[in-house]
Amino acid sequence: MTAPEPDMTASPADLAKRHASRLEEALHACATREQWSPFKESPSSKIHGETRPAEGKAGFEALLGKAFELDQPGTVGTVVHEVSPYTLEPLGIAYPKSDPDALFDAARAAMKPWDKLSPDERAGVCFEMAFALEEQAFINAHATMHTAGQAYLMAFSGSGANALDRGVEALAYAYKAMADVPRVAEWEKDFGRTGRVRLKKSFRLRARGVAVVVCCATFPLWNAYPAVFANLMTGNAAILKPHPNGILPVALAVRRMREVLVKAGLDPNMVLLAADEREAPITIELLKHPACAIIDYTGSQRFGAWIEEHCADRLVYTETAGCNAVVLDSFDDIDACLGGLANGLCGFSAQMCTSPQNIHIPAQGVRVQGEAMDFEAVATRIADAIADRTASPARAAGLCAAVQAEQSLELIKEVRERVLAAGGEVLLDSRPYAHPDFPNARTATPLVVSVDASQIDLYGEEVFAPVCFLIREASSEAALENAARIAAERGAISSYLYSADRDFIADAQDRFADAGASLWINMDDRMPINFAAAYSDYHVTGLNPAGNACLADLAFVANRFRIVQFREPVPAGAAQ
Amino acid sequence: MTAPEPDMTASPADLAKRHASRLEEALHACATREQWSPFKESPSSKIHGETRPAEGKAGFEALLGKAFELDQPGTVGTVVHEVSPYTLEPLGIAYPKSDPDALFDAARAAMKPWDKLSPDERAGVCFEMAFALEEQAFINAHATMHTAGQAYLMAFSGSGANALDRGVEALAYAYKAMADVPRVAEWEKDFGRTGRVRLKKSFRLRARGVAVVVCCATFPLWNAYPAVFANLMTGNAAILKPHPNGILPVALAVRRMREVLVKAGLDPNMVLLAADEREAPITIELLKHPACAIIDYTGSQRFGAWIEEHCADRLVYTETAGCNAVVLDSFDDIDACLGGLANGLCGFSAQMCTSPQNIHIPAQGVRVQGEAMDFEAVATRIADAIADRTASPARAAGLCAAVQAEQSLELIKEVRERVLAAGGEVLLDSRPYAHPDFPNARTATPLVVSVDASQIDLYGEEVFAPVCFLIREASSEAALENAARIAAERGAISSYLYSADRDFIADAQDRFADAGASLWINMDDRMPINFAAAYSDYHVTGLNPAGNACLADLAFVANRFRIVQFREPVPAGAAQ
Repeated sequence: MTAPEPDMTASPADLAKRHASRLEEALHACATREQWSPFKESPSSKIHGETRPAEGKAGFEALLGKAFELDQPGTVGTVVHEVSPYTLEPLGIAYPKSDPDALFDAARAAMKPWDKLSPDERAGVCFEMAFALEEQAFINAHATMHTAGQAYLMAFSGSGANALDRGVEALAYAYKAMADVPRVAEWEKDFGRTGRVRLKKSFRLRARGVAVVVCCATFPLWNAYPAVFANLMTGNAAILKPHPNGILPVALAVRRMREVLVKAGLDPNMVLLAADEREAPITIELLKHPACAIIDYTGSQRFGAWIEEHCADRLVYTETAGCNAVVLDSFDDIDACLGGLANGLCGFSAQMCTSPQNIHIPAQGVRVQGEAMDFEAVATRIADAIADRTASPARAAGLCAAVQAEQSLELIKEVRERVLAAGGEVLLDSRPYAHPDFPNARTATPLVVSVDASQIDLYGEEVFAPVCFLIREASSEAALENAARIAAERGAISSYLYSADRDFIADAQDRFADAGASLWINMDDRMPINFAAAYSDYHVTGLNPAGNACLADLAFVANRFRIVQFREPVPAGAAQ
Repeated sequence: MTAPEPDMTASPADLAKRHASRLEEALHACATREQWSPFKESPSSKIHGETRPAEGKAGFEALLGKAFELDQPGTVGTVVHEVSPYTLEPLGIAYPKSDPDALFDAARAAMKPWDKLSPDERAGVCFEMAFALEEQAFINAHATMHTAGQAYLMAFSGSGANALDRGVEALAYAYKAMADVPRVAEWEKDFGRTGRVRLKKSFRLRARGVAVVVCCATFPLWNAYPAVFANLMTGNAAILKPHPNGILPVALAVRRMREVLVKAGLDPNMVLLAADEREAPITIELLKHPACAIIDYTGSQRFGAWIEEHCADRLVYTETAGCNAVVLDSFDDIDACLGGLANGLCGFSAQMCTSPQNIHIPAQGVRVQGEAMDFEAVATRIADAIADRTASPARAAGLCAAVQAEQSLELIKEVRERVLAAGGEVLLDSRPYAHPDFPNARTATPLVVSVDASQIDLYGEEVFAPVCFLIREASSEAALENAARIAAERGAISSYLYSADRDFIADAQDRFADAGASLWINMDDRMPINFAAAYSDYHVTGLNPAGNACLADLAFVANRFRIVQFREPVPAGAAQ
């Protein structure tokens, strides 16, 4: 364990006080769903000073090729697995390989003292963790870049402040659900002949058990923070299982959270790491462990469905992947709208769960300020907007970043071949671009192909790669219907509509509501169209195959704890 | 459908207004957990007038031997099954036999207009239903007596006002969970170079689909009302599947709720009946139907576990059965305490999910006001208290009522034989008592046997019959440990402790909390010890095999609906 630091004396009660006003603000933001964040989103030196960015980079580099120090129980070996998508070099970091039984035993033991903390104290500790994690945002940015392949800015904000905000959001929801249960009550009732009886009642919140949090490769922490804080708040310990190529950000986070626990005088085993390698996976062993009570999963739809089916005796929360649609109908400002869309198609090489993939376009084209624009012209505009954004290596680097997995390049190749074989057209080919800072980076500009609506076997699944299908539909209505049906049947996390027609928009809202999918309308180039704001956007509906949970709502937290009750008569003579 | 009545004009909006203050009161009661009820619990003629009780009885008798009029879709035949535990005569009532596909189709169609109602309107309609159901409390009392075997008073209050209160409690929780989601929001954020972006967001609550509510034989409506109201509030239609011998109370309730829906101008198929016979069960077909989204189950632990395992792709809420323990340690007022306990052992012939069964008694006896009382003396006291309560047929009738199923009599026989074969002792034998009003009634006074703690194969399962095990334990601590372990491993809904020692009570609370079981302490004879108060007691913890849900808490309702979101930029020129 790291040496105790001077502010060792901050007890959970102190931390509850320290962060009480922030908890209030978070609860307020969840209710109003206005923009709010207690974290710094920008890595600018103007905010952080000149030295912090360089220290972060140096800190990351100092970790390479060494054993990662993490003092936790049950270490039985080491795991060395990660390769940087930017350098294609192994990171060479050796993490503890853990014995699952020892992890679960340690986690269960840690839950006993944690059980005694009030919700306010738990919130205080979790907030303290969040700010401690923010302190390492620079090192985390480099760790995220070199595992997930994100660009520096996204790795700093999207995997830093924005992800922490999601954790605090879940914290607030858990607090709210627990606050709904009073701790004591008096109850009095007239039982006729025997007279009035008074009962003193007390209610104790109980955790369920140990949670296993399965993280994904491209956003290692974005769903991990909400899961960890939802679990800690409700009394459950969390074992984090990172993707084999995304261990470092998770390991850094686990270590930091454990340090905060120790400083608060608590058992650090409320948060544990279970790293593995692709060749020796331990996920199923963890999920099937008798002591695993809760599963929080982010990753592929296939494994998510497997978990939902085979781990039904645990509480299971999943966020997987969607076949995200865009319906084009009509535009007031086509440049701004297609600009926003092109940004979304390029952003992090479409490796986000919210990335658009399928652009449903009426064969007769769209209306632009009332004028007709044919399919080919719209398609060319989209391809041009993407070509424009990827022409300069510097711009491509900032927007597309790196491709996390070699398989994504294979997928691009496969899609190209299958589309051409089926008579579709490649409108803009994918190519590697030369990253200005990392000459060996695994990169790919988006592949843009056009297919017919009938060729659903080409576009009807999520392709985890920068691939965009322009789908020729019979009409706007047909486009809407096809997109909504795919959302319902194949899953969607974010769907997009561009229309200048209020009636069409209203109809689309009804259809997507029936499909159980959320819809972003006319999102233009003034912000990333697929930005998901903590405290404001309900991320994932849970109504389609893209996941069964929303991060965060009351359903995400209310069942993670249960209520045990005691009652006893008040002696007849006792005061009212 | 029944003919429209004069107050046909009460729209959902009218009903929302009519019941708004009651909704506030229900929400308040859930928060304070004080006693509250808008319903009349007593069947006294002083409250209801002289004619209502007789009308109720006559109304019940008029139903016998006839077709039950219920105009709902998909009727493909009739179901005639029920036999009265009081007369052992068939009721001869013929209910519609339904085609499941037609029921699900009708339910799904009904959900579309219902979807448009606000939570307040839904609450208004549900409250209106509850009061309409209260109006038929007398006929329901007779229907419940002659199917479940309950005594008249319990059938009137326990299956009337008390059950409706549980429905309203679930309604209030659903309202609260839905109120947590705002319907619109404005969100504004600075995106640096592109400036501030404002988004208008809207949030739409979506139902999950059709719920199947499986009711039990002995309390046909007690868990049905909470399930139905939780589902209706959150937008889900409910198909009620009664126990083959408990159709009438459910059919009466379904018909009444459908009438209220019609009067409010709504599709009555939000509530449907699916009756079956033991020889041709349809429960599994309903639960496995592709359109079944939610299962609310009350019944045996075995079938409940089957559902949890095999219907994991649905939302499943279960309340099954527990092996409810009583731990005896010490007493201040042993007469009042053992009197309360004896009432609990006799009450409705122990056919309640809250009925005590296993009395764990230290071999060296208990302390009574500081004095020792040996095991045999305590055992004799308990047996005597039961004998005393069952000596007079009139008193036995009011307390023990009738035995719902012939199998319960078989169980008594089996337990007697197994206990004697294993060297245990029968301290008080079970016998039929002569019911003063129904000479053919299926009755049985409690069987009281004594066994050793080691003989868990004799007492370690719920015996659904009036059977009470006095279990000889090494010490109070051993009694506590054994009782808590059985609660955790075999399930418990209500557990009981009698102790005058505050330290022992505190220890017991910790042990039962760890076991995931609620504990009622020193409950004496001034009220039924196993009375579960809506709005106040959290019924079932969900932490042990006696069920996975609590009726009601936020977890019981929060996942029955989901959130679909829309968002759109506010044009740059729009007003703040």
